[in-house]
Amino acid sequence: VDTVVQSPSRTVVIGPDQPFCVIGERINPTGRKAFQKQLQAGDLSQLEIDTAEQVAGGADMLDVNVGDPLADEIELMRAAVPLVQGLTDLPLCIDSSVIEALEAGLSAYQGKALVNSVTGEDERLEAILPIVAKYGAAVIGLANAEDIPMEPERRLEVAKKIVSVAGDYGIPPEDILIDPLAMPVGAEPRAVTLFLETLHLLRDELGVNTTCGASNTSFGLPGRHTLGAAFLAVAQSHGLTSAIMDARRTETVEAVRATDFLLGRDEWGARWIADFRKKQAEAAAAA
Amino acid sequence: VDTVVQSPSRTVVIGPDQPFCVIGERINPTGRKAFQKQLQAGDLSQLEIDTAEQVAGGADMLDVNVGDPLADEIELMRAAVPLVQGLTDLPLCIDSSVIEALEAGLSAYQGKALVNSVTGEDERLEAILPIVAKYGAAVIGLANAEDIPMEPERRLEVAKKIVSVAGDYGIPPEDILIDPLAMPVGAEPRAVTLFLETLHLLRDELGVNTTCGASNTSFGLPGRHTLGAAFLAVAQSHGLTSAIMDARRTETVEAVRATDFLLGRDEWGARWIADFRKKQAEAAAAA
Repeated sequence: VDTVVQSPSRTVVIGPDQPFCVIGERINPTGRKAFQKQLQAGDLSQLEIDTAEQVAGGADMLDVNVGDPLADEIELMRAAVPLVQGLTDLPLCIDSSVIEALEAGLSAYQGKALVNSVTGEDERLEAILPIVAKYGAAVIGLANAEDIPMEPERRLEVAKKIVSVAGDYGIPPEDILIDPLAMPVGAEPRAVTLFLETLHLLRDELGVNTTCGASNTSFGLPGRHTLGAAFLAVAQSHGLTSAIMDARRTETVEAVRATDFLLGRDEWGARWIADFRKKQAEAAAAA
Repeated sequence: VDTVVQSPSRTVVIGPDQPFCVIGERINPTGRKAFQKQLQAGDLSQLEIDTAEQVAGGADMLDVNVGDPLADEIELMRAAVPLVQGLTDLPLCIDSSVIEALEAGLSAYQGKALVNSVTGEDERLEAILPIVAKYGAAVIGLANAEDIPMEPERRLEVAKKIVSVAGDYGIPPEDILIDPLAMPVGAEPRAVTLFLETLHLLRDELGVNTTCGASNTSFGLPGRHTLGAAFLAVAQSHGLTSAIMDARRTETVEAVRATDFLLGRDEWGARWIADFRKKQAEAAAAA
């Protein structure tokens, strides 16, 4: 099945036979002190830089998270969404743990957004899914509830629950991206093998599309961009259809586009070769 | 099962739960005009450079091919093997299409070598396997005979034949690495997906270890090292246990070592982190 998200002038299709969907992670204050201070002052000017860098890097969608405990996240989200939509036609992923901020973002969004995210607890499902349904959005479902299960079968169970409850609200399975949970391999040596097993189960038993926070895998490790590039190539070849990831780094985005080509999702390498020529031309113009 | 190759002072184990085995491809005159001329003049001095670069790059084994139609390959192989063994303790892969050159290399080799390669034709099997058995070597079996089959099931059939005939000569399955045939994705969009399907069949139905000429995949394409790195990460995660590859390029070898870490074959990243610190120290010393 294919998942469709849209801005007024662009449609992105996510699916097992589609090119991988790169969701830029940069618009997020986590770990960014200067950006946090700006948000606390109601200053959204950084979004112009973040948007431009991710568009230039080759993002297919942009995640928008403006959450800060010392800022009015709801008002920030209400302003951030039209600001970013004025800068790019990429579809957006409205990202908050605050339900009112998700609704503020969705009400301001033009098109069919992606919501990041819902987990498997009843109260989260009951609070977030009606809003997703009301705005006709798609939603990311994290395969965890109160606890983070390590066993792939238990992650599948949470995913099944999310898909089932979403159905009760009229949200079809194709509007759900399940996140199998990418954990730091530096903290748990089985993190990636469990992730891949969960991907296989989600593909074979539930048939849903998938996403993840790809940077988590290499958290705290040296050479993390090389680890991240290898992780994305591997995960994509085992069925991952999108990722919230660093879209500004050539190394990471190129690993995804190379894998598209290798797996037959960029036939004859048309996009790969066009991208290469574009970079050559840019390098020549800069020299 | 594990495949074991050895030099007098080093053992390399190839297997599904082992770190990936990087076989350096550089000692090969294909496409190297200057090296071809040197071989024609009986000059093997280039092997010192090629060996040093591949050892520094992180090779686990070295392929040795000194074939040139205008040179005496048998005498060159007889000299090249002890020369390289005097320069490194890495086990070698004796590579020739000339049966007498294979035998000359094996007779000069100290340890348990790998032979590159045999195909599925009766006359090749009958000529090469007795030599492999005589010297107690391991051997690469290419999954093709007169024709190169495209269908994974037919490649599996050729592999089964090679394993069966090798058994008749007393060569056990663990001494055979099957090459599922990595073809250029620029010439055949299904090249990599067929390769991966063949890997699955070889793993599930034959249980043998595998290798391939990894550089073939990206032949003739721009950005080929990025494609090659993604290919190696993907193939490794689908069961490939070794590759004859560019061991001089940081980008390519790092993709393999990153994938070892991700797949739990470098627990807690001990090797990954040690390699990173070593590179930092070298960079600091050079600055």
